[in-house]
Amino acid sequence: MNEFDLIAKYFTRPTPDVDLGVGDDAALISVSAGHQLAISVDMLVAGRHFFADADPERLGHKCLAVNLSDMAAMGAKPTWFTLSLALPEMNEPWLAAFSRGMFALADQFGVPLIGGDTTRGPLSISIQIAGEVPKGAALLRSGALVGDDIWVSGPLGAAAAAVMHRTGRVELPAAIALRCDLRLDLPTPRVALGQALRGLANSAMDISDGLLGDLAHICEQSQVMAIIDFNKVPQAIELNSLNSILVAEASLAGGDDYELCFTASPANRAEIETLGSALSTPLFRVGSIATFDANQPMVQVIDTQGQRMNLAFSGFDHFK
Amino acid sequence: MNEFDLIAKYFTRPTPDVDLGVGDDAALISVSAGHQLAISVDMLVAGRHFFADADPERLGHKCLAVNLSDMAAMGAKPTWFTLSLALPEMNEPWLAAFSRGMFALADQFGVPLIGGDTTRGPLSISIQIAGEVPKGAALLRSGALVGDDIWVSGPLGAAAAAVMHRTGRVELPAAIALRCDLRLDLPTPRVALGQALRGLANSAMDISDGLLGDLAHICEQSQVMAIIDFNKVPQAIELNSLNSILVAEASLAGGDDYELCFTASPANRAEIETLGSALSTPLFRVGSIATFDANQPMVQVIDTQGQRMNLAFSGFDHFK
Repeated sequence: MNEFDLIAKYFTRPTPDVDLGVGDDAALISVSAGHQLAISVDMLVAGRHFFADADPERLGHKCLAVNLSDMAAMGAKPTWFTLSLALPEMNEPWLAAFSRGMFALADQFGVPLIGGDTTRGPLSISIQIAGEVPKGAALLRSGALVGDDIWVSGPLGAAAAAVMHRTGRVELPAAIALRCDLRLDLPTPRVALGQALRGLANSAMDISDGLLGDLAHICEQSQVMAIIDFNKVPQAIELNSLNSILVAEASLAGGDDYELCFTASPANRAEIETLGSALSTPLFRVGSIATFDANQPMVQVIDTQGQRMNLAFSGFDHFK
Repeated sequence: MNEFDLIAKYFTRPTPDVDLGVGDDAALISVSAGHQLAISVDMLVAGRHFFADADPERLGHKCLAVNLSDMAAMGAKPTWFTLSLALPEMNEPWLAAFSRGMFALADQFGVPLIGGDTTRGPLSISIQIAGEVPKGAALLRSGALVGDDIWVSGPLGAAAAAVMHRTGRVELPAAIALRCDLRLDLPTPRVALGQALRGLANSAMDISDGLLGDLAHICEQSQVMAIIDFNKVPQAIELNSLNSILVAEASLAGGDDYELCFTASPANRAEIETLGSALSTPLFRVGSIATFDANQPMVQVIDTQGQRMNLAFSGFDHFK
């Protein structure tokens, strides 16, 4: 099987909603009038973001999910994606499973694969996604306002617990480890929530590197301070058997949950809570945005006594 | 230096012509009214598409050039690109040179980098590019018509000769090898030509895998046959010291030249020749499009006697 057969067999499907799909020097697409395109790329490398023997079907899901999550974080409706795939060798069972996992998620969100590139090389996957958003309506990191509530879209930490378990830092009961694995391997991008938050939220991002580290980006870009009430941070029930230090680490600094973190005016609380119910996505108010102070940490976590907690971890750095 | 510093230092530059550049969950861009976006991705992997110790400045040029070439092949005006970069280690001199080479070419064509992803991993580079083309005006592989002339935009084979020299298949004089290296490492995407061919050419593509192999795609998609007159194929003067078999291989099946191959009605000959002069890009008429015949090869090469040549090579297969 050569490169063209591979693309035809595993990565070419009808794309009725784009002007021209896979097969030419480029794909051709149109953008709805009055809309902007949101464009994002995420690259996953074997041995860094996943184990080389990771289940290919789950991997296909995850690679697309993290990109869909970026669209959610912008409030954009995902419209198409491309794939760059380097594979160590022609491996049809792997390709069949990978493409099955990827297209299952793509179908769920109605997002066509419009093009890409495949080559032999160390296993790595880069997906670029595009979404549409009405001009000026995107949810930016730079929009947080003093007084905003800080919200997250679900319990945090289960994906981090899976990593702790796999790397031997903790021992989880088998049934719990399985649930954590599902959170790590098959994240659910909050696409509908992101679009519904347009006009309600002032800023948003997805939690890929950990709540505190990611929130720091909102603070930097909005020039504000974030104060998190640790007791309001929804902790995944899968963390129950861990000690309190690991629970704090998993829920505050654990990556890979792909929940949304957003800020919104307290005036919108009722509407946001209604929205969470309507989408069956529990929304949790975890803190508030305060005035920037150069003498204080940009992101602070306070305990039940209102005391600032001393935390010895931060976000994930891809070059550490 | 962490990932965010790396992006800030080497890959973040003002992008006044896009709505939102590097730094959020996604970039935001607008598309001109009445236009489609042409979208293409090319991935280059160390050890496969370039040597791991390749000059990083040239590599930065080449990675972007091959993507610009896809825009040229569509007749699109390149408008932005994104970068996925996996690097074995933080290497500032490498990053400085790579980004210098990439941005030098980006500046030449006025194309901003709007986003991307960097991570630690085996060296690989995936660039996705977008261009604009007036709706319906893109140059497709599927548009070739029986009777069309087949054109190429410059002498072929020098890049292939560089590969032959580097891999020890041939010994080239040092001065010639240097010129071939420049063709291989620093290809010139025919961006202005591509746009100028809108309305003149019926089909087009860029020659990345070799004239014959690439032309086969036009034939397949247009359901036609291509007849190449070998004596009209412009051979790079750098091939002069090679024997005739190698000259044929380099010019007909050698990849990496990134010239355009296009087909056009004979009625447009004069206008196309004028265009080549105006752009200082010599254009060569190398054959013609004939009726599809299931009993004959889709792409044929004939010699001075009008006899079909027997050629024992074909295009480059990324999974061979």
